[in-house]
Amino acid sequence: MQNKRKVDICLTPSLLDLFNLSDKLVVVIDVFRATSAMCVFLNNGGRSVIPFATIDEAKIYTNNNTNQQYLVAAERDGRIVPGFDLGNSPLSYHNKNFTGSSLVITTTNGTLSISKSKKTSCGIVLASFLNMSAVCHYLHSIDKDVLFVCSGWKGRMCVEDLLLAGLMSSKLLSKNNFISQSDSVLMGLSLYESAKGDIVEFLSKSAYKNRLNLDADIKYCLQQDIMSIVPIWSQNYDGNECFFVKKSNNV
Amino acid sequence: MQNKRKVDICLTPSLLDLFNLSDKLVVVIDVFRATSAMCVFLNNGGRSVIPFATIDEAKIYTNNNTNQQYLVAAERDGRIVPGFDLGNSPLSYHNKNFTGSSLVITTTNGTLSISKSKKTSCGIVLASFLNMSAVCHYLHSIDKDVLFVCSGWKGRMCVEDLLLAGLMSSKLLSKNNFISQSDSVLMGLSLYESAKGDIVEFLSKSAYKNRLNLDADIKYCLQQDIMSIVPIWSQNYDGNECFFVKKSNNV
Repeated sequence: MQNKRKVDICLTPSLLDLFNLSDKLVVVIDVFRATSAMCVFLNNGGRSVIPFATIDEAKIYTNNNTNQQYLVAAERDGRIVPGFDLGNSPLSYHNKNFTGSSLVITTTNGTLSISKSKKTSCGIVLASFLNMSAVCHYLHSIDKDVLFVCSGWKGRMCVEDLLLAGLMSSKLLSKNNFISQSDSVLMGLSLYESAKGDIVEFLSKSAYKNRLNLDADIKYCLQQDIMSIVPIWSQNYDGNECFFVKKSNNV
Repeated sequence: MQNKRKVDICLTPSLLDLFNLSDKLVVVIDVFRATSAMCVFLNNGGRSVIPFATIDEAKIYTNNNTNQQYLVAAERDGRIVPGFDLGNSPLSYHNKNFTGSSLVITTTNGTLSISKSKKTSCGIVLASFLNMSAVCHYLHSIDKDVLFVCSGWKGRMCVEDLLLAGLMSSKLLSKNNFISQSDSVLMGLSLYESAKGDIVEFLSKSAYKNRLNLDADIKYCLQQDIMSIVPIWSQNYDGNECFFVKKSNNV
């Protein structure tokens, strides 16, 4: 009998040290807005996404970018950092062609999750509502336990990230080759059940709604399965540590 | 116009450093089983509860207890620590008379939450399903913001603690002099709404259920409002830092 694979959810990067990542594929989630924006960039032909935890690391690419190979984006507290042209709004990357370009990006929460995950995990992929079914399809296809890492907001949990982690957990668990004994997963599943009737309405009570006036971004980020890419982490792609799209899956 | 008071929830003691406790009354919750057991002890006449984070601190009282003034309890990983007579099962404290006694206690999660909270908060009370309405009554009566601290399990969140924090938050928020903009509270409220029809059934899927075979304890701890005490932290009561019962409230 085949051993079932485990699904778990880390509610915020602050709790990541409590998990043994060495045998897990990590799925980083930052619905509003980092992983959503990265997915849009890659879906529009972007060659790779190079994430950094700090502004200083990203800034090196603004100073050393003579052939315009790199787009450089930086967001803190929901706003574009002065001196950078781009932030983490997916609308900035929508309806554009990025063929041949790489995106260097640092954000308040999402790139911090990635930075913490890449040290010890056996793989990372990026998920958003935009590409969730493609990611679930990929997760089914490989033989690893799965940990969803919710990026949250400055160390605390965000309800929209847990909502997506709950939805994706339910998709994995429905196929009978995954199991969970985690209270975080139970909570994610319950949250999704409560919210699924009207996710926009449910999230209208969330902290994010009050943080910035970003209705257009929120609406955009909550679209489900508008693309079928799976951004996968590589230490050796194109000479960089980055996310790239291995292939498009048929969802 | 009176300023509304804030309600928030800290999902596990691992996240406590993200909160400014200096102006908050902290409500420590460890449903299974530390705060439930402490409430039972105090409700049965116990003079005070003296919590310690470490076994070594508690052990001092076993060696220096000639007049049997102290009961000394220690639990780790759900079991009584060898060398101690008591753990954190509320049934051990049920139907007994503890008049004049103090309980020295250390547990895996609950006393750690207390230890972390007492350093900086402006007050601590203990809550369980057993005394929740009495605690809510007390919280209404004083002019402080409220932070529920869920003790969880070894740093991670537990669904039963969040369930009680969600239920108590809903009781506070229903009275219109409290507000919340916290996603943790939104999650707690949503979780309680999902579970309230049959809490025992809901928790049958939780991690705790799988951890130890403690059906009798679980059933006992989920009784609502069987007592009306409010255990309050004092630095100067009876020469000890301890919890004591100021008075019984009429629920």
